[in-house]
Amino acid sequence: MDDPFRTIEWKGDHIRLLDQTLLPGDEVYLRISRVDDLCDAIRRLAVRGAPAIGVAAAMGIALGMLDVPDADKRDFQRRLEEVCRQIGSTRPTAVNLFWAIDRMKEVVKAFPEADVADLRDKLVRQAVLMEQEDRDLCRKIARCGKDLLGDGETVLTHCNAGGLATAGYGTALGVIRAAWEGGKRISVIADETRPLNQGARITSWELMKLGIPVTLIPDNTAGALMQRGEIHKVIVGADRIASNGDAANKIGTYSVAVLARHHGIPFYVAAPLSTIDMSLADGRSIPIEERDPHEVTHIGTVQIAPAGVKVRNIAFDVTPHELISGIVTEMGIASDPFEESFRIFFDKKEQEGKS
Amino acid sequence: MDDPFRTIEWKGDHIRLLDQTLLPGDEVYLRISRVDDLCDAIRRLAVRGAPAIGVAAAMGIALGMLDVPDADKRDFQRRLEEVCRQIGSTRPTAVNLFWAIDRMKEVVKAFPEADVADLRDKLVRQAVLMEQEDRDLCRKIARCGKDLLGDGETVLTHCNAGGLATAGYGTALGVIRAAWEGGKRISVIADETRPLNQGARITSWELMKLGIPVTLIPDNTAGALMQRGEIHKVIVGADRIASNGDAANKIGTYSVAVLARHHGIPFYVAAPLSTIDMSLADGRSIPIEERDPHEVTHIGTVQIAPAGVKVRNIAFDVTPHELISGIVTEMGIASDPFEESFRIFFDKKEQEGKS
Repeated sequence: MDDPFRTIEWKGDHIRLLDQTLLPGDEVYLRISRVDDLCDAIRRLAVRGAPAIGVAAAMGIALGMLDVPDADKRDFQRRLEEVCRQIGSTRPTAVNLFWAIDRMKEVVKAFPEADVADLRDKLVRQAVLMEQEDRDLCRKIARCGKDLLGDGETVLTHCNAGGLATAGYGTALGVIRAAWEGGKRISVIADETRPLNQGARITSWELMKLGIPVTLIPDNTAGALMQRGEIHKVIVGADRIASNGDAANKIGTYSVAVLARHHGIPFYVAAPLSTIDMSLADGRSIPIEERDPHEVTHIGTVQIAPAGVKVRNIAFDVTPHELISGIVTEMGIASDPFEESFRIFFDKKEQEGKS
Repeated sequence: MDDPFRTIEWKGDHIRLLDQTLLPGDEVYLRISRVDDLCDAIRRLAVRGAPAIGVAAAMGIALGMLDVPDADKRDFQRRLEEVCRQIGSTRPTAVNLFWAIDRMKEVVKAFPEADVADLRDKLVRQAVLMEQEDRDLCRKIARCGKDLLGDGETVLTHCNAGGLATAGYGTALGVIRAAWEGGKRISVIADETRPLNQGARITSWELMKLGIPVTLIPDNTAGALMQRGEIHKVIVGADRIASNGDAANKIGTYSVAVLARHHGIPFYVAAPLSTIDMSLADGRSIPIEERDPHEVTHIGTVQIAPAGVKVRNIAFDVTPHELISGIVTEMGIASDPFEESFRIFFDKKEQEGKS
């Protein structure tokens, strides 16, 4: 089944992306022609989800180089650095952002003799390729993970790791979707995911579009449903995974992992290898974004807290690897000791790339 | 220090109560002259919190008997049963509601020879007494519990168990308040408490009015703060406690208790003895209210979920006694085995009542 929406798309001279802040009320596609607007879209979460942010970053770099005069290669280099720095400063936690920037820079490095017009083409092709790759990766992750879910099971997910968090199909939701498309009767419990309600606004919308049974709950209700035996598995995405398997994901993921452990429920993470940051020994060094208190005190135009109240709006938390039953990637399911699995997967992927 | 607001008050021919659904935006007091309106106020949570619901129920019964003709005692009895049944059907979980109804009925039973005018007076006096008692109880609970909190500690609370959940001063917040008024530098982390945001709307408002430092967090953030070592104690209220110490409280309390246990953080419940239901062996038989999905899908007039999405809106959960470090009552702090503590407290209270 095709995706019932398109997260992000390269349109020759602009990027077309679905403004996720307006879901589920309105399905509005933005036409983005300037790097500033792309950065703004990433910052205010019009596009969000680690893999989708990676693709957006790559397209943003391609976009930023479109108007550099053909003649001036020094200007091209300076502008590339500037655009990469600008896009790299939008959100600190998702490592896919930096991975995408590095991949785009490598294109330029690989062709030192190429002229500006040629490099510009190569960057556009690379960005479009990365979007296509991400869609393929998601399908591979889904195939690797689908047997983790049994017929008749109820799966809880937190935030949105669906088609809208990626270029399409999704990571955690991709696994669920592949199990569903394979004929298993799966139902999904979607955590609302305060403060930005991605579960309420996006995950439930996406699953309803796909026809997969979904029940929305306040984040507070996950524990009670586990206690009642109504949740069989948990699967979530990730924004950055350290080499030991510690995984940063949307705030509240850690609480769900602790609850799952308390109830003996398997807890899985699904993410492409680009989410794994082998330079980090563990999750303590993952930078964690804190966001505007306004996101907590207001919903739309409704103020739900007293004016001037102090707020902590921590956007992500880190689930230690001990609480993770398995990390589903495009090369297989990693398990403890994760570092060993990751090295095997990266090697295998490099071999595949060469062959 | 006096309360900066009055939750509920008897005004001779009507009840005056603060409409908590409008906080923190507006501080509006309702003038309630009819039992129907009182039931509506309880049902839509204009007045909420187990002890406050108990007082509201007692005053509602007094109100309902005001217009029975002096002559007709049979009519009085019939009307009493009807009013009690009506008020008893508003909310199933808070046992204080049924405790209050029983206490009001006992007044009538205790004076079989009294005439209608006399009984009406006695019921009014009883309701007013129960409001005063509740305020005193809260101060006693606070005194019993205040040494649980140390100087410089940060305490997490879930939902609102403050002056607004009682006739005044509060249970869980009363303990915090007494520690603060005793000179301890306490700061409070208030869980937002989805879906009705009592933490955001009421607890933070109440603590700001009292000048006690408070930080509002989405419920999802409690785990991350515990992981960072930023929370030293948890204290919450309760809506019904079984004889073994299993405690029903606002949905999400159970999750907080599991998280606290995982991090070795003491988890306390504060409640008057009227919240303890010795007729229940354990928490499994506590009736748990499920409420309108609209509370989850909408905030004010803003719709945050797709139209027609399936929702579970379970209003309470049950924290098993093994996760509770102590239950603070007006007669002392109960600990495991709770049933033994409770029996001693009830006996002691009966002795005090007789002397």
